[in-house]
Amino acid sequence: MDSRVFNQGEKLNIAEPLQRAIEEFSKFPGIGRKTAQRLSLFLLKTNEDSFNNFINSMVDLKKKLTFCSRCYNISEDELCEICRSPKREKTTICVVEEASDIIAIERTNEYMGMYHVLGGVLSPLSGMTHDRLKIKELLTRLKDENIEEIILALNPDTEGDATTLYLLNLLKPLGIRVTRIARGLPIGGDLEFADEATIGRALTGRIQL
Amino acid sequence: MDSRVFNQGEKLNIAEPLQRAIEEFSKFPGIGRKTAQRLSLFLLKTNEDSFNNFINSMVDLKKKLTFCSRCYNISEDELCEICRSPKREKTTICVVEEASDIIAIERTNEYMGMYHVLGGVLSPLSGMTHDRLKIKELLTRLKDENIEEIILALNPDTEGDATTLYLLNLLKPLGIRVTRIARGLPIGGDLEFADEATIGRALTGRIQL
Repeated sequence: MDSRVFNQGEKLNIAEPLQRAIEEFSKFPGIGRKTAQRLSLFLLKTNEDSFNNFINSMVDLKKKLTFCSRCYNISEDELCEICRSPKREKTTICVVEEASDIIAIERTNEYMGMYHVLGGVLSPLSGMTHDRLKIKELLTRLKDENIEEIILALNPDTEGDATTLYLLNLLKPLGIRVTRIARGLPIGGDLEFADEATIGRALTGRIQL
Repeated sequence: MDSRVFNQGEKLNIAEPLQRAIEEFSKFPGIGRKTAQRLSLFLLKTNEDSFNNFINSMVDLKKKLTFCSRCYNISEDELCEICRSPKREKTTICVVEEASDIIAIERTNEYMGMYHVLGGVLSPLSGMTHDRLKIKELLTRLKDENIEEIILALNPDTEGDATTLYLLNLLKPLGIRVTRIARGLPIGGDLEFADEATIGRALTGRIQL
Protein backbone atom coordinates (compact mmCIF):
# COMPACT_ATOMS: atom_id res chain seq x y z
CA MET A 1 0.00 0.00 0.00
CA ASP A 2 1.28 3.42 -0.94
CA SER A 3 2.47 5.23 2.18
CA ARG A 4 0.82 8.41 0.89
CA VAL A 5 -2.58 7.05 1.92
CA PHE A 6 -1.88 7.91 5.55
CA ASN A 7 0.32 10.92 5.00
CA GLN A 8 -0.59 14.36 6.28
CA GLY A 9 -2.56 15.81 3.41
CA GLU A 10 -3.54 19.34 2.56
CA LYS A 11 -6.49 20.57 4.65
CA LEU A 12 -9.60 19.54 2.76
CA ASN A 13 -12.38 21.98 3.34
CA ILE A 14 -16.04 21.15 3.77
CA ALA A 15 -18.11 22.38 0.78
CA GLU A 16 -18.60 26.12 1.28
CA PRO A 17 -22.44 26.18 1.39
CA LEU A 18 -22.40 23.47 4.05
CA GLN A 19 -19.72 25.33 5.96
CA ARG A 20 -21.87 28.47 5.96
CA ALA A 21 -25.01 26.60 7.03
CA ILE A 22 -23.08 25.07 9.95
CA GLU A 23 -21.84 28.51 10.95
CA GLU A 24 -25.38 29.92 10.85
CA PHE A 25 -26.77 27.13 13.03
CA SER A 26 -23.83 27.53 15.44
CA LYS A 27 -25.06 31.06 16.17
CA PHE A 28 -28.18 29.71 17.87
CA PRO A 29 -27.99 29.53 21.66
CA GLY A 30 -26.98 26.11 22.97
CA ILE A 31 -26.10 24.77 19.52
CA GLY A 32 -22.50 23.62 19.23
CA ARG A 33 -20.55 22.83 16.09
CA LYS A 34 -21.46 19.16 16.02
CA THR A 35 -25.18 19.77 16.48
CA ALA A 36 -25.01 22.52 13.83
CA GLN A 37 -23.46 20.01 11.45
CA ARG A 38 -26.16 17.45 12.23
CA LEU A 39 -28.93 20.00 11.61
CA SER A 40 -27.36 21.15 8.33
CA LEU A 41 -26.97 17.61 7.03
CA PHE A 42 -30.56 16.80 8.01
CA LEU A 43 -31.77 19.82 6.07
CA LEU A 44 -29.60 18.86 3.10
CA LYS A 45 -31.26 15.43 3.03
CA THR A 46 -34.92 16.42 3.46
CA ASN A 47 -37.08 16.47 0.38
CA GLU A 48 -38.03 19.66 -1.46
CA ASP A 49 -41.46 19.96 0.22
CA SER A 50 -40.21 19.62 3.78
CA PHE A 51 -37.44 22.08 3.01
CA ASN A 52 -39.88 24.65 1.62
CA ASN A 53 -42.16 24.20 4.63
CA PHE A 54 -39.23 24.88 6.89
CA ILE A 55 -38.14 28.03 5.04
CA ASN A 56 -41.68 29.38 4.73
CA SER A 57 -42.45 28.90 8.39
CA MET A 58 -39.21 30.71 9.31
CA VAL A 59 -40.06 33.62 7.01
CA ASP A 60 -43.60 33.77 8.45
CA LEU A 61 -42.21 33.73 11.95
CA LYS A 62 -40.20 36.84 11.16
CA LYS A 63 -42.76 38.58 8.97
CA LYS A 64 -45.98 37.96 10.87
CA LEU A 65 -44.85 38.26 14.45
CA THR A 66 -43.94 41.30 16.47
CA PHE A 67 -43.97 42.26 20.15
CA CYS A 68 -47.09 43.48 21.97
CA SER A 69 -46.84 47.24 22.48
CA ARG A 70 -48.21 46.93 26.01
CA CYS A 71 -46.64 43.84 27.60
CA TYR A 72 -43.92 42.92 25.03
CA ASN A 73 -45.27 39.42 24.62
CA ILE A 74 -44.96 37.87 21.15
CA SER A 75 -47.93 38.94 19.10
CA GLU A 76 -49.43 38.94 15.62
CA ASP A 77 -51.02 42.36 16.24
CA GLU A 78 -50.32 45.64 18.01
CA LEU A 79 -51.69 44.09 21.22
CA CYS A 80 -51.18 40.42 22.08
CA GLU A 81 -53.99 37.91 22.59
CA ILE A 82 -53.64 38.13 26.35
CA CYS A 83 -53.80 41.95 26.45
CA ARG A 84 -56.82 41.89 24.13
CA SER A 85 -58.70 39.11 25.91
CA PRO A 86 -61.78 40.27 27.85
CA LYS A 87 -61.47 37.13 29.99
CA ARG A 88 -58.17 38.11 31.62
CA GLU A 89 -58.02 39.77 35.01
CA LYS A 90 -56.62 43.27 34.35
CA THR A 91 -55.55 44.17 37.89
CA THR A 92 -52.63 41.74 38.18
CA ILE A 93 -49.37 41.89 36.23
CA CYS A 94 -46.93 39.00 36.26
CA VAL A 95 -43.42 40.27 35.45
CA VAL A 96 -41.25 37.79 33.52
CA GLU A 97 -37.82 37.83 31.92
CA GLU A 98 -38.67 36.59 28.43
CA ALA A 99 -41.73 35.91 26.29
CA SER A 100 -40.92 32.20 26.55
CA ASP A 101 -41.68 32.41 30.28
CA ILE A 102 -45.23 33.45 29.38
CA ILE A 103 -45.61 30.26 27.34
CA ALA A 104 -44.40 28.25 30.34
CA ILE A 105 -46.81 29.96 32.75
CA GLU A 106 -49.73 29.76 30.30
CA ARG A 107 -49.19 26.01 30.02
CA THR A 108 -50.05 25.63 33.71
CA ASN A 109 -53.50 27.11 33.03
CA GLU A 110 -53.37 28.54 36.55
CA TYR A 111 -52.86 32.22 35.90
CA MET A 112 -55.49 34.49 34.39
CA GLY A 113 -53.89 37.92 34.86
CA MET A 114 -51.75 40.09 32.59
CA TYR A 115 -48.01 39.93 31.90
CA HIS A 116 -45.06 42.23 31.43
CA VAL A 117 -41.90 41.01 29.68
CA LEU A 118 -38.75 42.74 30.97
CA GLY A 119 -36.61 41.49 28.10
CA GLY A 120 -33.86 40.25 30.40
CA VAL A 121 -32.55 40.72 33.91
CA LEU A 122 -30.05 43.13 35.41
CA SER A 123 -26.54 41.96 34.61
CA PRO A 124 -24.16 44.92 34.52
CA LEU A 125 -21.21 42.74 33.46
CA SER A 126 -22.97 41.72 30.25
CA GLY A 127 -24.23 45.24 29.67
CA MET A 128 -27.81 44.66 30.84
CA THR A 129 -28.44 47.81 32.84
CA HIS A 130 -31.87 48.90 34.10
CA ASP A 131 -32.47 51.23 31.14
CA ARG A 132 -32.26 48.29 28.71
CA LEU A 133 -35.10 46.45 30.45
CA LYS A 134 -38.75 47.41 30.02
CA ILE A 135 -38.91 48.85 33.55
CA LYS A 136 -39.90 52.40 32.52
CA GLU A 137 -42.70 50.84 30.46
CA LEU A 138 -43.85 48.85 33.49
CA LEU A 139 -44.00 52.01 35.61
CA THR A 140 -46.03 53.74 32.88
CA ARG A 141 -48.51 50.86 32.91
CA LEU A 142 -48.89 51.24 36.67
CA LYS A 143 -49.92 54.85 36.12
CA ASP A 144 -52.28 54.14 33.20
CA GLU A 145 -53.83 50.85 34.31
CA ASN A 146 -55.57 49.97 37.54
CA ILE A 147 -53.06 47.47 38.92
CA GLU A 148 -53.50 45.90 42.36
CA GLU A 149 -50.76 43.28 42.40
CA ILE A 150 -47.42 42.74 40.72
CA ILE A 151 -46.15 39.15 40.73
CA LEU A 152 -42.39 38.97 40.16
CA ALA A 153 -41.70 35.68 38.34
CA LEU A 154 -38.02 36.00 37.45
CA ASN A 155 -35.67 33.03 37.40
CA PRO A 156 -34.45 31.96 40.85
CA ASP A 157 -30.78 32.76 40.22
CA THR A 158 -28.44 35.57 41.31
CA GLU A 159 -29.36 37.92 38.48
CA GLY A 160 -33.06 37.18 38.77
CA ASP A 161 -32.89 37.82 42.52
CA ALA A 162 -31.00 41.08 42.05
CA THR A 163 -33.60 42.24 39.54
CA THR A 164 -36.44 41.20 41.86
CA LEU A 165 -34.87 43.29 44.63
CA TYR A 166 -34.37 46.25 42.29
CA LEU A 167 -38.00 46.12 41.17
CA LEU A 168 -39.24 45.68 44.73
CA ASN A 169 -37.45 48.90 45.76
CA LEU A 170 -39.05 50.73 42.84
CA LEU A 171 -42.55 49.32 43.30
CA LYS A 172 -42.95 49.21 47.08
CA PRO A 173 -43.21 53.03 47.48
CA LEU A 174 -46.09 53.05 44.96
CA GLY A 175 -48.33 51.21 47.43
CA ILE A 176 -48.96 48.27 45.13
CA ARG A 177 -48.91 44.74 46.48
CA VAL A 178 -45.71 43.07 45.24
CA THR A 179 -45.29 39.27 45.47
CA ARG A 180 -42.70 36.80 44.27
CA ILE A 181 -43.36 33.24 43.08
CA ALA A 182 -42.42 30.55 45.61
CA ARG A 183 -39.11 28.67 45.70
CA GLY A 184 -38.92 25.16 47.09
CA LEU A 185 -38.75 21.56 46.05
CA PRO A 186 -39.99 20.97 42.50
CA ILE A 187 -43.06 18.72 42.24
CA GLY A 188 -41.93 15.16 41.67
CA GLY A 189 -38.48 16.11 42.97
CA ASP A 190 -36.54 14.10 45.50
CA LEU A 191 -35.40 15.62 48.79
CA GLU A 192 -32.34 13.37 48.80
CA PHE A 193 -31.11 14.69 45.46
CA ALA A 194 -32.11 18.34 45.86
CA ASP A 195 -29.28 20.86 46.23
CA GLU A 196 -28.64 22.62 49.54
CA ALA A 197 -29.82 26.01 48.31
CA THR A 198 -33.19 24.61 47.23
CA ILE A 199 -33.69 22.70 50.50
CA GLY A 200 -32.64 25.81 52.41
CA ARG A 201 -35.21 27.93 50.55
CA ALA A 202 -37.87 25.24 51.04
CA LEU A 203 -37.24 25.33 54.81
CA THR A 204 -37.25 29.13 55.04
CA GLY A 205 -40.38 29.31 52.94
CA ARG A 206 -42.29 26.62 54.87
CA ILE A 207 -46.01 27.29 55.33
CA GLN A 208 -48.24 26.43 58.25
CA LEU A 209 -50.73 23.65 57.64
CA MET B 1 -57.92 39.92 44.78
CA ASP B 2 -60.46 38.56 42.31
CA SER B 3 -60.46 34.76 42.50
CA ARG B 4 -60.63 34.61 38.68
CA VAL B 5 -56.94 35.50 38.45
CA PHE B 6 -56.01 31.96 39.36
CA ASN B 7 -59.00 30.17 37.86
CA GLN B 8 -58.64 27.62 35.12
CA GLY B 9 -58.85 29.69 31.98
CA GLU B 10 -59.52 28.79 28.38
CA LYS B 11 -56.46 27.26 26.70
CA LEU B 12 -54.44 30.19 25.34
CA ASN B 13 -52.63 29.26 22.19
CA ILE B 14 -49.17 30.35 21.18
CA ALA B 15 -49.28 32.65 18.13
CA GLU B 16 -49.71 30.41 15.08
CA PRO B 17 -46.53 31.39 13.17
CA LEU B 18 -44.47 30.69 16.30
CA GLN B 19 -46.28 27.41 16.80
CA ARG B 20 -45.42 26.37 13.24
CA ALA B 21 -41.76 27.40 13.57
CA ILE B 22 -41.49 25.33 16.76
CA GLU B 23 -43.01 22.35 14.98
CA GLU B 24 -40.56 22.71 12.09
CA PHE B 25 -37.53 22.84 14.40
CA SER B 26 -38.89 19.85 16.36
CA LYS B 27 -38.53 17.76 13.20
CA PHE B 28 -34.74 18.02 13.34
CA PRO B 29 -32.99 15.03 14.92
CA GLY B 30 -32.20 15.50 18.59
CA ILE B 31 -34.23 18.71 18.89
CA GLY B 32 -37.00 18.51 21.46
CA ARG B 33 -39.91 20.89 21.94
CA LYS B 34 -38.14 23.13 24.40
CA THR B 35 -35.03 23.53 22.25
CA ALA B 36 -37.26 24.13 19.21
CA GLN B 37 -38.97 26.91 21.14
CA ARG B 38 -35.62 28.42 22.14
CA LEU B 39 -34.39 28.36 18.52
CA SER B 40 -37.63 29.91 17.22
CA LEU B 41 -37.55 32.71 19.79
CA PHE B 42 -33.90 33.39 19.02
CA LEU B 43 -34.71 33.70 15.33
CA LEU B 44 -37.65 35.97 16.12
CA LYS B 45 -35.35 38.30 18.02
CA THR B 46 -32.41 38.49 15.60
CA ASN B 47 -32.13 41.55 13.42
CA GLU B 48 -33.17 41.63 9.76
CA ASP B 49 -29.62 41.11 8.44
CA SER B 50 -28.82 38.09 10.57
CA PHE B 51 -32.18 36.60 9.69
CA ASN B 52 -31.61 37.06 5.96
CA ASN B 53 -28.13 35.55 6.25
CA PHE B 54 -29.63 32.53 7.94
CA ILE B 55 -32.34 32.03 5.32
CA ASN B 56 -29.96 32.61 2.40
CA SER B 57 -27.41 30.13 3.68
CA MET B 58 -30.15 27.51 4.13
CA VAL B 59 -31.41 28.06 0.59
CA ASP B 60 -27.85 27.87 -0.76
CA LEU B 61 -27.25 24.68 1.19
CA LYS B 62 -30.20 23.09 -0.59
CA LYS B 63 -29.66 24.67 -4.01
CA LYS B 64 -25.89 24.42 -4.42
CA LEU B 65 -25.16 21.08 -2.84
CA THR B 66 -25.78 17.61 -4.15
CA PHE B 67 -24.24 14.18 -3.64
CA CYS B 68 -21.11 13.01 -5.46
CA SER B 69 -22.11 10.55 -8.18
CA ARG B 70 -19.15 8.31 -7.34
CA CYS B 71 -18.80 8.22 -3.55
CA TYR B 72 -22.05 9.95 -2.40
CA ASN B 73 -20.16 12.53 -0.39
CA ILE B 74 -21.69 16.01 -0.22
CA SER B 75 -20.54 17.94 -3.28
CA GLU B 76 -21.01 21.16 -5.20
CA ASP B 77 -20.36 19.34 -8.48
CA GLU B 78 -20.99 15.99 -10.15
CA LEU B 79 -17.85 14.67 -8.44
CA CYS B 80 -16.84 15.78 -4.94
CA GLU B 81 -13.58 17.53 -4.11
CA ILE B 82 -12.05 14.31 -2.82
CA CYS B 83 -12.94 12.28 -5.91
CA ARG B 84 -11.58 15.07 -8.14
CA SER B 85 -8.38 15.68 -6.20
CA PRO B 86 -5.21 14.44 -7.93
CA LYS B 87 -3.52 14.29 -4.54
CA ARG B 88 -5.69 11.51 -3.18
CA GLU B 89 -4.62 7.88 -3.23
CA LYS B 90 -7.09 6.17 -5.59
CA THR B 91 -6.48 2.54 -4.55
CA THR B 92 -8.05 2.74 -1.08
CA ILE B 93 -11.74 3.22 -0.29
CA CYS B 94 -12.93 4.01 3.22
CA VAL B 95 -16.56 2.93 3.63
CA VAL B 96 -18.60 5.12 5.99
CA GLU B 97 -22.21 5.35 7.08
CA GLU B 98 -22.90 9.03 6.43
CA ALA B 99 -21.25 12.00 4.72
CA SER B 100 -20.73 13.51 8.18
CA ASP B 101 -18.33 10.66 8.94
CA ILE B 102 -16.14 11.88 6.07
CA ILE B 103 -15.94 15.30 7.72
CA ALA B 104 -14.88 13.62 10.99
CA ILE B 105 -12.19 11.53 9.27
CA GLU B 106 -10.94 14.44 7.15
CA ARG B 107 -10.46 16.48 10.34
CA THR B 108 -7.82 13.99 11.50
CA ASN B 109 -5.71 14.78 8.41
CA GLU B 110 -4.51 11.19 8.56
CA TYR B 111 -6.29 9.62 5.62
CA MET B 112 -5.52 10.41 2.00
CA GLY B 113 -7.59 7.76 0.19
CA MET B 114 -11.08 7.78 -1.28
CA TYR B 115 -14.45 7.30 0.42
CA HIS B 116 -17.78 5.57 -0.14
CA VAL B 117 -20.89 6.66 1.76
CA LEU B 118 -23.34 3.79 2.36
CA GLY B 119 -26.15 6.10 3.39
CA GLY B 120 -26.93 4.11 6.53
CA VAL B 121 -26.39 0.68 8.03
CA LEU B 122 -28.38 -2.53 7.85
CA SER B 123 -31.33 -2.32 10.20
CA PRO B 124 -34.18 -4.52 8.96
CA LEU B 125 -36.50 -3.40 11.79
CA SER B 126 -36.36 0.21 10.63
CA GLY B 127 -36.59 -0.83 7.00
CA MET B 128 -32.91 -0.38 6.13
CA THR B 129 -32.29 -3.43 4.00
CA HIS B 130 -29.15 -4.01 1.90
CA ASP B 131 -30.78 -2.70 -1.29
CA ARG B 132 -31.34 0.72 0.30
CA LEU B 133 -27.62 1.15 0.98
CA LYS B 134 -25.10 2.09 -1.72
CA ILE B 135 -23.64 -1.44 -1.72
CA LYS B 136 -24.34 -2.20 -5.39
CA GLU B 137 -22.61 1.09 -6.22
CA LEU B 138 -19.60 0.07 -4.13
CA LEU B 139 -19.30 -3.24 -6.00
CA THR B 140 -19.49 -1.36 -9.32
CA ARG B 141 -16.62 0.86 -8.21
CA LEU B 142 -14.56 -2.22 -7.38
CA LYS B 143 -15.00 -3.36 -10.97
CA ASP B 144 -14.29 0.03 -12.55
CA GLU B 145 -11.54 1.35 -10.30
CA ASN B 146 -8.27 -0.22 -9.31
CA ILE B 147 -8.95 -0.76 -5.61
CA GLU B 148 -6.44 -2.53 -3.37
CA GLU B 149 -7.93 -1.98 0.07
CA ILE B 150 -11.36 -1.36 1.55
CA ILE B 151 -11.39 0.14 5.04
CA LEU B 152 -14.69 -0.43 6.81
CA ALA B 153 -15.24 2.54 9.15
CA LEU B 154 -18.80 1.99 10.38
CA ASN B 155 -19.92 2.88 13.89
CA PRO B 156 -18.89 0.34 16.54
CA ASP B 157 -22.45 -0.66 17.47
CA THR B 158 -24.63 -3.71 16.74
CA GLU B 159 -25.95 -2.43 13.42
CA GLY B 160 -22.54 -1.17 12.32
CA ASP B 161 -21.01 -4.53 13.19
CA ALA B 162 -23.72 -6.45 11.33
CA THR B 163 -23.16 -4.29 8.26
CA THR B 164 -19.40 -4.73 8.52
CA LEU B 165 -19.88 -8.51 8.59
CA TYR B 166 -22.29 -8.37 5.65
CA LEU B 167 -19.83 -6.33 3.58
CA LEU B 168 -16.92 -8.56 4.58
CA ASN B 169 -18.77 -11.60 3.24
CA LEU B 170 -19.42 -9.77 -0.02
CA LEU B 171 -15.94 -8.35 -0.44
CA LYS B 172 -13.68 -11.16 0.77
CA PRO B 173 -14.33 -13.44 -2.28
CA LEU B 174 -13.24 -10.58 -4.58
CA GLY B 175 -9.66 -10.90 -3.35
CA ILE B 176 -9.47 -7.32 -2.09
CA ARG B 177 -7.83 -6.54 1.23
CA VAL B 178 -10.61 -5.62 3.70
CA THR B 179 -9.77 -3.95 7.01
CA ARG B 180 -11.80 -2.46 9.83
CA ILE B 181 -10.85 0.57 11.93
CA ALA B 182 -9.58 -0.30 15.43
CA ARG B 183 -11.69 -0.39 18.57
CA GLY B 184 -10.17 0.28 21.94
CA LEU B 185 -9.79 2.94 24.56
CA PRO B 186 -10.37 6.44 23.20
CA ILE B 187 -7.34 8.75 23.42
CA GLY B 188 -7.56 10.75 26.63
CA GLY B 189 -9.97 8.14 27.99
CA ASP B 190 -9.72 6.58 31.42
CA LEU B 191 -9.45 2.81 31.87
CA GLU B 192 -11.28 3.04 35.17
CA PHE B 193 -14.34 4.63 33.62
CA ALA B 194 -14.37 2.71 30.33
CA ASP B 195 -17.21 0.22 29.82
CA GLU B 196 -16.56 -3.53 29.84
CA ALA B 197 -17.19 -3.96 26.11
CA THR B 198 -14.59 -1.32 25.22
CA ILE B 199 -11.98 -2.75 27.60
CA GLY B 200 -12.74 -6.25 26.27
CA ARG B 201 -12.21 -5.07 22.69
CA ALA B 202 -9.03 -3.23 23.71
CA LEU B 203 -7.65 -6.46 25.20
CA THR B 204 -8.63 -8.63 22.23
CA GLY B 205 -7.18 -6.09 19.83
CA ARG B 206 -3.87 -5.66 21.71
CA ILE B 207 -0.80 -5.22 19.51
CA GLN B 208 2.74 -6.41 20.07
CA LEU B 209 5.24 -3.68 20.90
